[in-house]
Amino acid sequence: MAPIPHPYTTSIAFDRRLYKQDIAGSKAHARMLGRQGIILAGEVEAICGGLDAIEAEIESGEFAFREELEDIHMNVETRLAELIGEAAGRLHTARSRNDQVALDVRMFVRDAIDEIVLGLRGFQSGVLSQAEANVDAIMPGYTHLQRAQPVLVAHHMLAYFEMAQRDIERLRDCRKRMNVLPLGAGALAGVTYEIDREFVARELGFDSVARNSMDAVSDRDFLVEFHAAAALTMMHLSRLAEELIIWTSEEFGFAKLAPEYTTGSSIMPQKRNPDVAELARGKTGRVYGNLMAILTMLKGLPLAYNKDMQEDKEGLFDTVDTLNTTLHAFAGMIETMTVNRDRTRAAAEEGVYSGILATDLADYLVTKGVPFREAHGATKALVAYAGEKNTGLDTLSLGEYRRFSELFGEDVFEITVESSLGARGSEGGTAPERVREALAEAQEIMRSTGD
Amino acid sequence: MAPIPHPYTTSIAFDRRLYKQDIAGSKAHARMLGRQGIILAGEVEAICGGLDAIEAEIESGEFAFREELEDIHMNVETRLAELIGEAAGRLHTARSRNDQVALDVRMFVRDAIDEIVLGLRGFQSGVLSQAEANVDAIMPGYTHLQRAQPVLVAHHMLAYFEMAQRDIERLRDCRKRMNVLPLGAGALAGVTYEIDREFVARELGFDSVARNSMDAVSDRDFLVEFHAAAALTMMHLSRLAEELIIWTSEEFGFAKLAPEYTTGSSIMPQKRNPDVAELARGKTGRVYGNLMAILTMLKGLPLAYNKDMQEDKEGLFDTVDTLNTTLHAFAGMIETMTVNRDRTRAAAEEGVYSGILATDLADYLVTKGVPFREAHGATKALVAYAGEKNTGLDTLSLGEYRRFSELFGEDVFEITVESSLGARGSEGGTAPERVREALAEAQEIMRSTGD
Amino acid sequence: MAPIPHPYTTSIAFDRRLYKQDIAGSKAHARMLGRQGIILAGEVEAICGGLDAIEAEIESGEFAFREELEDIHMNVETRLAELIGEAAGRLHTARSRNDQVALDVRMFVRDAIDEIVLGLRGFQSGVLSQAEANVDAIMPGYTHLQRAQPVLVAHHMLAYFEMAQRDIERLRDCRKRMNVLPLGAGALAGVTYEIDREFVARELGFDSVARNSMDAVSDRDFLVEFHAAAALTMMHLSRLAEELIIWTSEEFGFAKLAPEYTTGSSIMPQKRNPDVAELARGKTGRVYGNLMAILTMLKGLPLAYNKDMQEDKEGLFDTVDTLNTTLHAFAGMIETMTVNRDRTRAAAEEGVYSGILATDLADYLVTKGVPFREAHGATKALVAYAGEKNTGLDTLSLGEYRRFSELFGEDVFEITVESSLGARGSEGGTAPERVREALAEAQEIMRSTGD
Amino acid sequence: MAPIPHPYTTSIAFDRRLYKQDIAGSKAHARMLGRQGIILAGEVEAICGGLDAIEAEIESGEFAFREELEDIHMNVETRLAELIGEAAGRLHTARSRNDQVALDVRMFVRDAIDEIVLGLRGFQSGVLSQAEANVDAIMPGYTHLQRAQPVLVAHHMLAYFEMAQRDIERLRDCRKRMNVLPLGAGALAGVTYEIDREFVARELGFDSVARNSMDAVSDRDFLVEFHAAAALTMMHLSRLAEELIIWTSEEFGFAKLAPEYTTGSSIMPQKRNPDVAELARGKTGRVYGNLMAILTMLKGLPLAYNKDMQEDKEGLFDTVDTLNTTLHAFAGMIETMTVNRDRTRAAAEEGVYSGILATDLADYLVTKGVPFREAHGATKALVAYAGEKNTGLDTLSLGEYRRFSELFGEDVFEITVESSLGARGSEGGTAPERVREALAEAQEIMRSTGD
Repeated sequence: MAPIPHPYTTSIAFDRRLYKQDIAGSKAHARMLGRQGIILAGEVEAICGGLDAIEAEIESGEFAFREELEDIHMNVETRLAELIGEAAGRLHTARSRNDQVALDVRMFVRDAIDEIVLGLRGFQSGVLSQAEANVDAIMPGYTHLQRAQPVLVAHHMLAYFEMAQRDIERLRDCRKRMNVLPLGAGALAGVTYEIDREFVARELGFDSVARNSMDAVSDRDFLVEFHAAAALTMMHLSRLAEELIIWTSEEFGFAKLAPEYTTGSSIMPQKRNPDVAELARGKTGRVYGNLMAILTMLKGLPLAYNKDMQEDKEGLFDTVDTLNTTLHAFAGMIETMTVNRDRTRAAAEEGVYSGILATDLADYLVTKGVPFREAHGATKALVAYAGEKNTGLDTLSLGEYRRFSELFGEDVFEITVESSLGARGSEGGTAPERVREALAEAQEIMRSTGD
Repeated sequence: MAPIPHPYTTSIAFDRRLYKQDIAGSKAHARMLGRQGIILAGEVEAICGGLDAIEAEIESGEFAFREELEDIHMNVETRLAELIGEAAGRLHTARSRNDQVALDVRMFVRDAIDEIVLGLRGFQSGVLSQAEANVDAIMPGYTHLQRAQPVLVAHHMLAYFEMAQRDIERLRDCRKRMNVLPLGAGALAGVTYEIDREFVARELGFDSVARNSMDAVSDRDFLVEFHAAAALTMMHLSRLAEELIIWTSEEFGFAKLAPEYTTGSSIMPQKRNPDVAELARGKTGRVYGNLMAILTMLKGLPLAYNKDMQEDKEGLFDTVDTLNTTLHAFAGMIETMTVNRDRTRAAAEEGVYSGILATDLADYLVTKGVPFREAHGATKALVAYAGEKNTGLDTLSLGEYRRFSELFGEDVFEITVESSLGARGSEGGTAPERVREALAEAQEIMRSTGD
Repeated sequence: MAPIPHPYTTSIAFDRRLYKQDIAGSKAHARMLGRQGIILAGEVEAICGGLDAIEAEIESGEFAFREELEDIHMNVETRLAELIGEAAGRLHTARSRNDQVALDVRMFVRDAIDEIVLGLRGFQSGVLSQAEANVDAIMPGYTHLQRAQPVLVAHHMLAYFEMAQRDIERLRDCRKRMNVLPLGAGALAGVTYEIDREFVARELGFDSVARNSMDAVSDRDFLVEFHAAAALTMMHLSRLAEELIIWTSEEFGFAKLAPEYTTGSSIMPQKRNPDVAELARGKTGRVYGNLMAILTMLKGLPLAYNKDMQEDKEGLFDTVDTLNTTLHAFAGMIETMTVNRDRTRAAAEEGVYSGILATDLADYLVTKGVPFREAHGATKALVAYAGEKNTGLDTLSLGEYRRFSELFGEDVFEITVESSLGARGSEGGTAPERVREALAEAQEIMRSTGD
Repeated sequence: MAPIPHPYTTSIAFDRRLYKQDIAGSKAHARMLGRQGIILAGEVEAICGGLDAIEAEIESGEFAFREELEDIHMNVETRLAELIGEAAGRLHTARSRNDQVALDVRMFVRDAIDEIVLGLRGFQSGVLSQAEANVDAIMPGYTHLQRAQPVLVAHHMLAYFEMAQRDIERLRDCRKRMNVLPLGAGALAGVTYEIDREFVARELGFDSVARNSMDAVSDRDFLVEFHAAAALTMMHLSRLAEELIIWTSEEFGFAKLAPEYTTGSSIMPQKRNPDVAELARGKTGRVYGNLMAILTMLKGLPLAYNKDMQEDKEGLFDTVDTLNTTLHAFAGMIETMTVNRDRTRAAAEEGVYSGILATDLADYLVTKGVPFREAHGATKALVAYAGEKNTGLDTLSLGEYRRFSELFGEDVFEITVESSLGARGSEGGTAPERVREALAEAQEIMRSTGD
């Protein structure tokens, strides 16, 4: 009698989540075995019917998962034997748990990527709706969290559209690279039957079949690549989360989140805490951790399959769920956020005092023939002078300007937050017409994809 | 009406696990409020009675956790109001969720450390039983997985006793440092009531009270320290796991695991896979990942409490469970393992041929007055000579020996695996009497601790 | 002839940094060999003299490190042979590179911890000087980066004193646990000479000797523990860095850094970027990464020494340097920082409008007999009412207050930022006298330590 | 006067390595400024000539890097001013250090990827030469480090070809996605000059220009993606390293490394340690750590540029160097490795005894009509029977076989290691003709790429 699996090694508590993939893979395998004459047509029918019944049982909650059967594969196979008898025992012909689980996980990740891409599209949609709503709203652009140059709120938002777009493309590259059928590798060395892997690949939507059986059963590269792509996406969301937290502080007051995205306090009745944004920022750690976990697990593993690899699933499920829920929450949170355009504009204007237009002043001198470095030096001295005098650049007299360069003329006072914005018309810049173009291009990207 | 918490932010699905700590903390808090005259004695009685009832409900599975109540604290408090009415509303006096959750998590980790230390003791016990059983069994000691010098199997096993001993001491330092009461910090600034924190500390077994309220609610250092200690322990187990996997390969054949610690194959009937050891090695990744997750989460968080910190729990529970189950499995696996002493001894003897006693030969020359470097050079040349002649060191003639040093005499043939072992009598060395002393000392450590 | 080491495996480019430890260890070893009669007194003298000369050569920059000699140990030993001849060859008696390098690294970490503890003391000193300077400065305390309750700036600063204090204690535990002599373990099995490990331990300041030779050469636990402690310290600094970056934004304007801790911009003349704080926050990643690197390296390593362990040094040096320079920079940056007490106080006062005293209002009701939950509910409704009316809590009439609870009386207007602060007199709270006590206690800790 | 940069924040010690990219980028920028009439043709000439001179100075070692000039950009620009005077000051027109450094790093990574791909090709070449040399050598294939089924050594080696092939494709996707010009983004908002970014992109070999200026200066996604791809490659090498270490143990004895890839011992003259393989396995940690470092650094960073990002370089350089040297070492180590075909074959044959052909026996029964599960059960019982009898499957009589299934016939003795291999003719399987096909296909891949 088979020894009862050690409770430590059973996986049914979590790998049951692969039931759909497991059943779809088994059906395709059975059909192939039938076509190749390895099992009988009637057996194929019985197997597929039985598997459909099992899927229905699982989805209705009637299926009794049994821990002593260790994993989803044996749970399904054992139930199949109960339902259809001997034919069930033929399903494992020309197949091993090693290639079967590799198949299931690949199919799961493929589906997960499709769902996450949809989530990213939803997020982009939220970002675009904010950008549209604020296509002419002005705010200070920051570097080092110091006011640097005026930008349009829409321009700032569109930066996140770009990040999400790269995230989508990265996930698609990952999907394309992993879309290779491992089934047919057997335990590690191939199988002794005349199987048709191309047929199974077509049935299950794979682009090709794995070229080396030992690689096929020991390869989890696609998981590492997926986890890394997920970590990048969470990193992007953590950056936006940080900004939202700062923007919704009373001191900034740039934005207000819809009440359903904030939470009260058990002790401080006045609080409107940006919990969703904070939690997303915190969950970045979890997704990074899952990446580190799988990299650590795979380090130094000899070929081919090793039980260590059972550890590939829980972190995967956790990262997939984290991304899906976070993207969903962010799509709504961004869409329903209100930008306080008076505050953002006031902050930009206030910045004039302390020098948010200083680059424009330097550029002004450059257009009058001063080398940039010299112009930069003159402007820097001018800013320092105003600082010491404890006054603003906007209140200095022309005479004072001219102490730093004789080339300053009356038209220096035409440099304003608006003129500064308008002047940044280089490709990708924050000039209003550029931003409108970028917005249109982004909308076109959204429309043109088949997602 | 309070807005319904966003599903993204609720934590009751996992923080329910803190119910014991939450209830114990609340009871101590209530008693203190009573002693200080902040609430009435009757209210204390009602609260404590109600909390006991709730604990019983939870443990019997009758308690209906409600997601809309967000977390364990509100679930307990709301149920308390149902059970005892108005008095329940007084429990949150002089307390915030921020200091309450900090308390609960600290109490949980304290308990977890105690359990893990017991697990480590069990593991040490398994190691010692193997060491005793093999106190005279000889094996090759390895460096770089190359045979280096003969050692006793017991000596090798005792190295793991040392690692576990450091793990225990490290966890105890962590426990001692974290055993500081955060309750009384309020939301972040302290509370406006005349509370007695020392009393609560004594009631709950804390050594002292947190000195700064902002630190008290934002400090999760103890979790990082715990995760790091856990990562070290898993690293140790991964090293032993690796050795067991190598030792139970057919090529080494040094050890055999009891059947309950190995698993068969779905396709290869002959397999006896060391699944428990492999899985433990793989789970190292998960524990490392959880460490990385909490470090990432805490990076750059401003004071005091931020919602990101809700992410401190799931990884903690996962790491605690992983350690407990892995230590338990290893204790049994090591205890029931059979060392094939013939194979280990044969491997050591076989090593004589290729040079496992070469260090002893060099030391032999040193005792005859040759400086070590020169002796090492001569022995190295001798080994190379035997290698080229494709023969073993044990079959060379004295004449051949003397080609490399005239100081070699007949007594060179008295150098054997046994003499080599016996000669390593320095403190901590593998000489049999040293190993027996070390074993006795280890047993004394086991006995003398109060665990 | 010995094969020339592969350039990939040489370590002299970085392990030369261990020269001091290597030489001190060799001298102690030589003296022990002499005392035990294993080498002659004259040889001891020659060896120690030669080693002193080599140390002088290295420190004056005259020493010619040679890559073909692979590591610091062989570079020193080879040079010693050039200087003193045959006696040099006796130094390696009863010693292997495996226990020698374990010794060197332990000694290095011991020294590094001592220096970092000094750095932490310097940091604490900077923190205390800010706390003293602002012992009566008021600011909003934040949770979720939302104003929560008023606190003293000194109270906020003292939270960092606590973190640093734990860091110091953690490093000291690490130092204590690692202060065990590995020398005498030989390659892995002990040595065949009558050595006196206790003597060497005393000479080199170790508390005890390693009990198991295989553990002694393969143990790098102390490095993991050190890296984890370092990661915690950097995490603390990253939190403070984040706060400084936020506080020095124009929107907060709470603090100004001394010019030497900010940097200008190549293009924006007005910028005063908090580069030191940002860089420290960024360097947190590097220290976390070094921790992950050593954990990964050690995962699954069989006993005893493996070459993988050569990778233990570069990350160590990098983390030590990062901590030392960061702590040094922070000590100065905090000490020279100016808090804008008008701005911090204004922010707290402004908070009154939106509810920073709402907890105090709830507590007010509690003192009049309302259960906390009910009081919290009433205050929450009051805050919401003011919010909808777009007015502040401080401008509502008593009549309006009483709509939410009849227990509100004229004395409700006595609740101010100051009264709120004063009321938080629980141990560890932000009440001025509590903060003064905490400050005095911190100064006492600084004085009483022997650092 | 500009304040001297704080030593903590200077980067010239490491970013000098970007000089080539910095100079190439500056030349393209100058040419564009000239074409657009922003600077004069003569100025372009002077600038480009000066930059060429500086490049020559740096490459000849004459260039005096100055730490007070902080970074490579200012070092070059300052020297340019010394060489060509005022025109140098015009180079920074329409450019900021923020977009300049983003450009330099992208160009560096692009070059690094090209070099690493070459390194991977070299590694694949070493793998293929071993596969060719051992196209008919038999070894046991392992799962769980237990003998599972016979495979060809070439089949095992080709699994690594596949991994490297995916690594190459992944790096190419990364290169393609990152090949976008950031220059022209200015500090964060675009520039106020009529620049031609498409021209610069073409000059520098970029496929397109960044669409959003804020994204362009704050995006380091390409570094994370690169680090993740590098981590995957090191993971693959760590798996092969582990196998080489196991294979070259005396117990396995499957392979011998060329002497230049092994190292001796300071104390054990007989040792031939696989240091290169071990070190590569250890260096996996460093590359994982660098990935974690950059992910941590980027977590929660607000837009746009922050000084934290200066930390993007040292880890990058370290990972690039580690990959290049490791791939180079592995290419040679694999190429010069000798497989001991007698030992590998003997291990496979020895496996017959314990059941390495058991799957084939089960498949034998399946071809006679037994459902796989039943066949597996019968074979498992047979293996257990032989085990208890302490004999091998190859020495049982037909009568004994038939106790477990009546379908066993005389032809069961025709199942051998060779027949087993031959039977695994499914696509990707280890049958000799399949492996020869796979080898040819791999060689075709090597030939057909333009690398």
